[in-house]
Amino acid sequence: MNRITATYEIESPVGIAKAAEVMAGEQSTGTFGKIALETDELRARCAAQIDELTITGTRPRASLPSRFSSETYERGMATISWPLDNLGTSLPNLLSTIAGNLFELAEVSAIRLTDISLPKVFADTNPGPAFGVDGTRAAIGGHKGPMIGTIIKPCVGLSPSETAGLVQTLLDAGIDFIKDDELQANGPHCPFPERVAKVMGVINDHAERTGKRVMYAFNITDEIDQMRRNLDLLSEYQATCAMVCMSSVGITGLRAVRNHSPHVIHGHRAGWGLFSRSPDIGISFPVWQQLWRLAGADHLHVNGLASKFTEPDTVVAESARSVQEPIFNNGGPAYSAMPVYSSAQTIWQIAPARALLGNDDFLFCAGGGIMSHPEGPGAGVVALRQAADAARNGVDIKEYAREHPELQAAVDTFPETRVALKGSVPNR
Amino acid sequence: MNRITATYEIESPVGIAKAAEVMAGEQSTGTFGKIALETDELRARCAAQIDELTITGTRPRASLPSRFSSETYERGMATISWPLDNLGTSLPNLLSTIAGNLFELAEVSAIRLTDISLPKVFADTNPGPAFGVDGTRAAIGGHKGPMIGTIIKPCVGLSPSETAGLVQTLLDAGIDFIKDDELQANGPHCPFPERVAKVMGVINDHAERTGKRVMYAFNITDEIDQMRRNLDLLSEYQATCAMVCMSSVGITGLRAVRNHSPHVIHGHRAGWGLFSRSPDIGISFPVWQQLWRLAGADHLHVNGLASKFTEPDTVVAESARSVQEPIFNNGGPAYSAMPVYSSAQTIWQIAPARALLGNDDFLFCAGGGIMSHPEGPGAGVVALRQAADAARNGVDIKEYAREHPELQAAVDTFPETRVALKGSVPNR
Repeated sequence: MNRITATYEIESPVGIAKAAEVMAGEQSTGTFGKIALETDELRARCAAQIDELTITGTRPRASLPSRFSSETYERGMATISWPLDNLGTSLPNLLSTIAGNLFELAEVSAIRLTDISLPKVFADTNPGPAFGVDGTRAAIGGHKGPMIGTIIKPCVGLSPSETAGLVQTLLDAGIDFIKDDELQANGPHCPFPERVAKVMGVINDHAERTGKRVMYAFNITDEIDQMRRNLDLLSEYQATCAMVCMSSVGITGLRAVRNHSPHVIHGHRAGWGLFSRSPDIGISFPVWQQLWRLAGADHLHVNGLASKFTEPDTVVAESARSVQEPIFNNGGPAYSAMPVYSSAQTIWQIAPARALLGNDDFLFCAGGGIMSHPEGPGAGVVALRQAADAARNGVDIKEYAREHPELQAAVDTFPETRVALKGSVPNR
Repeated sequence: MNRITATYEIESPVGIAKAAEVMAGEQSTGTFGKIALETDELRARCAAQIDELTITGTRPRASLPSRFSSETYERGMATISWPLDNLGTSLPNLLSTIAGNLFELAEVSAIRLTDISLPKVFADTNPGPAFGVDGTRAAIGGHKGPMIGTIIKPCVGLSPSETAGLVQTLLDAGIDFIKDDELQANGPHCPFPERVAKVMGVINDHAERTGKRVMYAFNITDEIDQMRRNLDLLSEYQATCAMVCMSSVGITGLRAVRNHSPHVIHGHRAGWGLFSRSPDIGISFPVWQQLWRLAGADHLHVNGLASKFTEPDTVVAESARSVQEPIFNNGGPAYSAMPVYSSAQTIWQIAPARALLGNDDFLFCAGGGIMSHPEGPGAGVVALRQAADAARNGVDIKEYAREHPELQAAVDTFPETRVALKGSVPNR
């Protein structure tokens, strides 16, 4: 099947069937009136086709403002497919086709892109992650279990030396992974070159002493030429990971980084809320993350369970799982990436975070969950590893804590969080 | 004022004041608890500050799903500013700061970025449009009046030769500008190199005969390296304009094109609906277009008045005006770009499209409005120019038509459209 398939949840003042027809026309051979050159032969060869339509209900009011109005608005799912030959396997052009003008059509009063299926020939021109889970573990020196990470805080304001001082504390605590905040790239307060020099100074020293090269994800986000220079600087200092704010640079930016980078690519999704938060317009994470994996992201942020952000836990769970799923359902490379949990994470979220994946191939970032442990950050990291061990062995965290004092102190310190994984995923 | 300022329309379960505080914290020095390194000195230097708060009302229900609930949801405007030194003048990093995580905060149940104000030092590292209106007119050979343009239809499916055949018809009709559809980039059905060769063949012949080099915006949208090759090919064939689907390539992609391009950059906004359509989450066009002009777009699509898309005419008008406004309100280069009207445009929309700008510095793209003229495309183009002349002279189109037969035929053929420019701009 050399077709590109996309499924949309839509609502329409003109009915699902008519709306899908307009969408298929607008995104392939259509124009406002059938013109001479739009022959039957051309349509047979190039028109998008409607593969499936499901009506799920009606609403009395339009969910989004629209030029058209109606007494009732039909809701449902529409699956549309395109011949690969219309556009080829270029991701930016895929975006123009599956997520372009159709969001603005007056014939839809709600539209979310909820699923895509790509022919595996996309793997021929899109490289996928260079490292993934195994490469990440190898770069650290053969790490086992979930990776325990943290984020430099405060997000902005620390000098390169202050940052390196905090990194030293975290290295001493036994951390696996540290990342810049998404707000800290190359601002005058903390210039990138000086930060890399200072931070890699302590990381390289620690690696020489211990054999463990803790991974620091430097935020290289910038214009293309500057990101290339940043990547070269990372190589010079034996750094192993580059972080990119994906929406801030765009898909071609991430791909340019992938082409030039000998480092693990840590994909931050700052700005994701714009794509996902409305139930009426947007793109689901299982769709969106496929594009970034194809372009080369090794790690992908998925929020945390019971985090400070607004995504329900069911969505976080689906997002985390999607990152590990194979991209193509008909063979081809898996292009699996590593889900990154973060935001207000403590020992309480690690068991459900592991359980929903069924494996240890994830990165668990905690801030206060490490730094605020009553016996210090070292005990904070140990407690998180103990929590992960308990989860792997299927032992309740409170029971496991009785034999593990660092975990017990964490259990006594951090308020138990409520993770809500029952129920359906809204707005998928 | 070396601060970056952004205004948001927000709704909150915890009140506007508290929500703005969380937004300012999340996007600068904040973390979930005040930690040791977050000193008062650091906060004074780096914290985002709340410059203005306005409460505009309350709602009984949350507009967007949120982790937090309340009996009432306050709505209002919050203006937040950042020290330039936190991030510098990099556009991708500006995006992470003003349009990053804050869309996901549980403290807001609606959030739209409606205004920004940037220090003029942004012009030092962001080049702006290389051509703008004057450069565009010069590239065609000294064109006067609004530029009359069209889009190749059907969007996809024509071979390079068929495309060139249609271009010949349009050249004979006296058109100023032609563009590829946003769906037609470099697909196997119509490969970019062959299309450029065939189309520029007829355009160069026409230029030699007439002295008028009609501008063809070739859709170069692709990965960075391929876009560079596409730009080089355009130079080889004396083409004058490259079209880029902005959201599909991302801001760093457009900037990479600007750095490499000796051609006019035509900015297509496929996917714009995702950013704008919901009244509850998104970015206003007056904000969004500033980023693309800073990066280097010469032309920017703004939909058309009374178009097939769902944007109200008041929004289209505001968008078109914004593209011509100076970026910085305290001096610096204007970086003005050329608004592009398109979608279901005929002679009826040209007077209001001109009136709202007060000048002829726009590109007016019509498809059926040219091709379906009863006396053929040549008369279609002439009729549009006559409609523009009438508008410039303040003469009613129907009166002007009495003395201008091509316009009269268009008046008799195309149904009169209703443009609705009265009333306020919703969801700015």
